[in-house]
Amino acid sequence: MSLKETAVRLFLKGVEAVKPENLIPEKVYLKKDILFVEQSSYHLPEKIYLFGSGKASVEMAKALLKILGERVADGLVVCNYTEKIDRIQVVEGNHPVPDEKSLKAGSLMIKKLSSLSENDFFIYLLSGGSSALMEKPLKPITLEDLKKTTQLLLENSVPIEEINVVRKHISAVKGGRLGRSTKAKGVVLVISDVIGDDLFTIGSAPLYYDKSTFADAYRILEKYSLLDKVPASVKQVIQKGLKGQIEETPKTENPHIKHHIIGNNLTALKKIKEESPFPAYIMTSQLHGEAREIAKAVVSIGKEVLKSGNPFDPPAVLLFGGETTVTVRGTGRGGRNQEFCLSALQELKDTPDVTVLSAGTDGIDGNTTSAGAVVDIETYRKAVRLNLDVNRFLENNDSHSFFGKTGGLINTGYTGTNVMDIVIMIVGGSHDSTA
Amino acid sequence: MSLKETAVRLFLKGVEAVKPENLIPEKVYLKKDILFVEQSSYHLPEKIYLFGSGKASVEMAKALLKILGERVADGLVVCNYTEKIDRIQVVEGNHPVPDEKSLKAGSLMIKKLSSLSENDFFIYLLSGGSSALMEKPLKPITLEDLKKTTQLLLENSVPIEEINVVRKHISAVKGGRLGRSTKAKGVVLVISDVIGDDLFTIGSAPLYYDKSTFADAYRILEKYSLLDKVPASVKQVIQKGLKGQIEETPKTENPHIKHHIIGNNLTALKKIKEESPFPAYIMTSQLHGEAREIAKAVVSIGKEVLKSGNPFDPPAVLLFGGETTVTVRGTGRGGRNQEFCLSALQELKDTPDVTVLSAGTDGIDGNTTSAGAVVDIETYRKAVRLNLDVNRFLENNDSHSFFGKTGGLINTGYTGTNVMDIVIMIVGGSHDSTA
Repeated sequence: MSLKETAVRLFLKGVEAVKPENLIPEKVYLKKDILFVEQSSYHLPEKIYLFGSGKASVEMAKALLKILGERVADGLVVCNYTEKIDRIQVVEGNHPVPDEKSLKAGSLMIKKLSSLSENDFFIYLLSGGSSALMEKPLKPITLEDLKKTTQLLLENSVPIEEINVVRKHISAVKGGRLGRSTKAKGVVLVISDVIGDDLFTIGSAPLYYDKSTFADAYRILEKYSLLDKVPASVKQVIQKGLKGQIEETPKTENPHIKHHIIGNNLTALKKIKEESPFPAYIMTSQLHGEAREIAKAVVSIGKEVLKSGNPFDPPAVLLFGGETTVTVRGTGRGGRNQEFCLSALQELKDTPDVTVLSAGTDGIDGNTTSAGAVVDIETYRKAVRLNLDVNRFLENNDSHSFFGKTGGLINTGYTGTNVMDIVIMIVGGSHDSTA
Repeated sequence: MSLKETAVRLFLKGVEAVKPENLIPEKVYLKKDILFVEQSSYHLPEKIYLFGSGKASVEMAKALLKILGERVADGLVVCNYTEKIDRIQVVEGNHPVPDEKSLKAGSLMIKKLSSLSENDFFIYLLSGGSSALMEKPLKPITLEDLKKTTQLLLENSVPIEEINVVRKHISAVKGGRLGRSTKAKGVVLVISDVIGDDLFTIGSAPLYYDKSTFADAYRILEKYSLLDKVPASVKQVIQKGLKGQIEETPKTENPHIKHHIIGNNLTALKKIKEESPFPAYIMTSQLHGEAREIAKAVVSIGKEVLKSGNPFDPPAVLLFGGETTVTVRGTGRGGRNQEFCLSALQELKDTPDVTVLSAGTDGIDGNTTSAGAVVDIETYRKAVRLNLDVNRFLENNDSHSFFGKTGGLINTGYTGTNVMDIVIMIVGGSHDSTA
């Protein structure tokens, strides 16, 4: 097996580990009436309710139904596709921009949760994508108003943290408002697709709480001179909130609702470390920044392993997780993982014995159908033979076309889970270097 | 001592280790007539010659004279300042753009080296800056022609590797041509200021050799449509070279001249590792890329140490070396190290227990008089109290003004050496976290 094949095999092992069908039975355990989740246990009533939203919600629900079976009385999950599941309703929302279906899903979820009594118990399955798949704007904001507001915020380069403050204050779902709609007790099982596993961010925190206020949302719109540009309904809601005429988002954790992160990037990295044929090291699960630049930092560590045996002796497998970004300047096809690999390739042109893989655990990288790519000096040599200029493809954000010619694309299809991206760098370990 | 003070103390220890006054006696040793440099030994004649060029050349010469004393018959060093030294001549060149003084220095160096016989022995002290401090264009290229050519190449965003190919083929000094001008035997002691310690790059390799050709230089000018834009003299020299009317740069190492890298970024990092009060790890000495992005990758590793004890348990000191770059977009005062710290600060705003230092070993960062800066969450809190917007200063490349207000600047003055930059990240180790 070549080192590139080894890297791909390790990546797939990591993805397997965070698929709901493997993650749920690993982390959730039922013994008689007691549900065990990590160090916690919950006494279940005879019948419970199963809810969920996010791109992994259908697969999570199926896996949990195998454990809970007939104990599930009713439920609803909102996903980016529908599939018939026993006992619970599956509805489709839209992603990444909420649509009428997303709003219907939001209303239905509030209705179901608010109909439960304080003696009821629910399990909620939360994963990435929830924020768009399921939404309900506060009255009188319409879907069009919501879309226009988001567009305005993006166009004016408002940082995502600030966009989320505004979003949470015009929503009946986000920032803990969904959680406040119910009297029932519940547990939220989360597959994290954000850096640092921040519960305030995952799915915009429908059942958690919120540290930001209407006053913050107002200040943000003011700061970017958007107060008079957002739809009147949005301004009206925020002004009413300021005056206390609309209730604030919850400011403390709901004591009846407990969150558990059952899978994240680190879960996948740990599995890869376990499966690695060479000593493996988890460097970070929090990698972010401009993909082509971050690749330089990552490869510089691999080169040091080769040069001086720091911080580890070769052969070594260095693992990074997280989610980089791409500033689009060109018109090509690519994604953050493939662009990362193209930049890494440039760093590897004089360096044998370093193999770099970068791929998204959801299986879809940018505007392509590949999950990512894997490269080494042979990839570079092939590009030279084909007379391909790495720089030109990089400038045009055309990494997918590049790897289409040189080989190295990783194609998994949609994996049904998402814990961001994984970078696997194998240093040394070839037959030559271990001989 | 605070952790910020600890970081600064460690940085200064690293700089001390690569100062010529400490480096030369550590790496060079004379016993009777035998000169030992690392694993090599050289039998010295009764009288030897001492040459040098680069910003550290004066200090290197002074340190070596302490070892060689009266054995030195004559010599010449070219530096960015002059200072009277026994036995050898010191001349000043200009940096970063060569001037008339640089050309005089180049002519004088060629004259002195070419006057030596095959029984003579010289020691040449090479350090960063040499390439501009000492130059001699091939006839009939003038200083103005040379300047215009460099400017054209830079304006047209020609990558530095390609610029150097052109430069080496219009110079009587670079790419090994200086080495070919002498029949004497010699040893070159090098303090490396480039990533990977590439002898082809350090000082443009006056005594090493060259892998590139006149044909490469021609192709590069053609590729960027500069053939008819460069001065006629430059085009003429390259065309003559193509026809074999001007000798190529040497294509093999001169068997009489041996290079030794006696100090580099890794030397400084190793010293810091040794002096660290907490377990320390050298992550890389080859860091490069856009400063503000690379900072995100570096801090993401520190945060993982805190979060999961990967790749090391805290407390831990993570060491990085290299040289990042800054794409200037604003009009502020700053440098790559201070900008790195400002970007790191943004990453640290919610993270106590991580201290980040970035500073240049030469003591001068960008267009400022500071070497760099050191930051932690307290720096961020102070900025908030002072109502300073980190983003705004970052956008304006105004890191120096920012740290002027918050504190955290490191001021050493010019250190007389240069092995690029050092990043020290201390994770954990505070009284709180170790209690």
